[in-house]
Amino acid sequence: MINRDRIGKLAGELSRQKLDALFMGPSTDLEYLAELKLFDDERVKGLMVSREGRCFAMVPRLYKEEMTAALGDAVSYKVWEDHEGFTGAWAAGCGELGLTGGRIAFNDGVRAVDLIEMRAAAGFEWANGAETLSPLRRRKDETELGYMRKAGEIADNVMDGMSKFIRTGIAEKDVRDEIMRLYEENGAEGLSFSPIVASGPGGSMPHYTGTDRILRDGDFIVVDTGCKFHGYCSDTTRTFCLGEPDAEQRKIYGIVLEAQKAGESAVCPGATGQDVDRAARQVINDAGYGQYFLNRVGHGVGIAIHESPYMIEGNTAPLEPGNVFSVEPGIYIEGKYGVRIENLVAVRPDGTPEALNKFTRDLIVI
Amino acid sequence: MINRDRIGKLAGELSRQKLDALFMGPSTDLEYLAELKLFDDERVKGLMVSREGRCFAMVPRLYKEEMTAALGDAVSYKVWEDHEGFTGAWAAGCGELGLTGGRIAFNDGVRAVDLIEMRAAAGFEWANGAETLSPLRRRKDETELGYMRKAGEIADNVMDGMSKFIRTGIAEKDVRDEIMRLYEENGAEGLSFSPIVASGPGGSMPHYTGTDRILRDGDFIVVDTGCKFHGYCSDTTRTFCLGEPDAEQRKIYGIVLEAQKAGESAVCPGATGQDVDRAARQVINDAGYGQYFLNRVGHGVGIAIHESPYMIEGNTAPLEPGNVFSVEPGIYIEGKYGVRIENLVAVRPDGTPEALNKFTRDLIVI
Repeated sequence: MINRDRIGKLAGELSRQKLDALFMGPSTDLEYLAELKLFDDERVKGLMVSREGRCFAMVPRLYKEEMTAALGDAVSYKVWEDHEGFTGAWAAGCGELGLTGGRIAFNDGVRAVDLIEMRAAAGFEWANGAETLSPLRRRKDETELGYMRKAGEIADNVMDGMSKFIRTGIAEKDVRDEIMRLYEENGAEGLSFSPIVASGPGGSMPHYTGTDRILRDGDFIVVDTGCKFHGYCSDTTRTFCLGEPDAEQRKIYGIVLEAQKAGESAVCPGATGQDVDRAARQVINDAGYGQYFLNRVGHGVGIAIHESPYMIEGNTAPLEPGNVFSVEPGIYIEGKYGVRIENLVAVRPDGTPEALNKFTRDLIVI
Repeated sequence: MINRDRIGKLAGELSRQKLDALFMGPSTDLEYLAELKLFDDERVKGLMVSREGRCFAMVPRLYKEEMTAALGDAVSYKVWEDHEGFTGAWAAGCGELGLTGGRIAFNDGVRAVDLIEMRAAAGFEWANGAETLSPLRRRKDETELGYMRKAGEIADNVMDGMSKFIRTGIAEKDVRDEIMRLYEENGAEGLSFSPIVASGPGGSMPHYTGTDRILRDGDFIVVDTGCKFHGYCSDTTRTFCLGEPDAEQRKIYGIVLEAQKAGESAVCPGATGQDVDRAARQVINDAGYGQYFLNRVGHGVGIAIHESPYMIEGNTAPLEPGNVFSVEPGIYIEGKYGVRIENLVAVRPDGTPEALNKFTRDLIVI
């Protein structure tokens, strides 16, 4: 059901951000505001919220039943039929809320092709609304943190299962299948993203999507997975070693481990996302592997797997109690292998870190 | 790898459509042009193709390895790092291809929030590019049709399995799990969409997402599923009846069946998408159930599960050999049940229909 308290707070944010309204397509924003999950197709659907807290819903006729059930009677419905297209309903809704000529933000659930048609159908100024709800969403309350702790515990159990399952001769796909089986067995409500199982040279691609390689002696195997619990995500990575690591493997693993710990330890009262990024990155730079660390140190996690706040150079906003984010440095050597270690970390009310993953970060040799 | 023949044909389409370039984010368009599938995150990535057939790729640093492997050396790479953001790379790429001030189409893989930033970073006129590649993609050649026939055959096998598996007392979720197991067993490469198993009142929502209801005697159960084979989708629906149907159930099933057959039969030389929609809809209207049929009669299918051509009022373009689309009329009675029957149909070189699903459309009483 629609959460009127959160809608009210969003209206306050819109005033503060000098926006007349926010339009949200299918997205985690709509899960946050109304527990609304929609079948993902090309029909334009979503919710407009104005700075007065008034709402209209864009509703393709064949979604009317579930959208009215979720949004209730506090919302004006603009229903459109397949053969009509959506622009008439859009213009009518904007007119009803007095938004014509106003400044409307669009969230990340809206497609560019639809924005182009919306702009042609009703005049307005636009704004990037990807972060409009972030000031609310990134401060998790105790209920939300409870869900995230449980999601983290389930992911830890799966990682423990991995340490017993991985062996030479099986395919990456077999490992993925076992991950999915273990999540189901451990009570996950679903995956927060498609599991990454990257062995050997695949490990140098942080978001490797392969499945076919056979695990071999001497491989590093990067396992990056997470699940959902009450709609909230977990996300954790461990790198296993098949057989005794050589000296370089031991060295690189040690650098990444030290970097990950340094990133977590940098979470303290007044610290910023940039501070956390720099603390972890410094360890890798000092060890001479800076060119092999390709990305930011971390991303916020909540209902979305990637959300605010980001642990990245340039993010100088202080972390806040209730923030939850990943700390996941890595070293990626093209054509050879990769190592990544990732925990989710929550900021306690006193500004110190609480790791949501407890599974050992020490190198596991299989 | 990038398909230079298809890039060349796209360049021709751009000239015909009076566009200077098409920018494609992660999407079935990129699978079609370059077999490029990307991990879906918020980092802006994709391919720009100009009317001269010149290309630049937007590449977040951590995707560089897989994108260069897929796109090869015929493409200019604009790589950006997390802490820089993407707009500098975007402006540089547009400048290199002489697109500043030009008319750029954007496909359905681009987010509105990113278009807003792109527009601020480099001046251009935009166009809705959701259908720019359609003139190529909707004319499937024999190789593509072969993949789709096989994907349809697998889906038929799964539907046959359903007729033996469905029984009272199990949950919708159990049926979904069995569908997924059967697809794997039958050699599918993955699902073309999350299976819809809608029993009893859930059946009145065409894209029902529930999983928990227990199947009961007297239920209609709508099963709508499909898989992928060599990247191409199948999509088929059957409605089963648990226990003997009552008179109204028999009547409604009979109307939908007649409508589905009428839609398929309307595929003939010179017929349009509108003709197919009207032929099926007329049967339901004539039977007095027009208000319970909520959507268009069909959508094109290929690498995407919904693509051109659409069987819908207003689509007056003649069908072409190689078109593949669904014919899926239904009757949806809120709070009670729904019935839908769906086959994919290909247009033969002589303009006549070839059903890609052979599983019986007669009512199966379990």
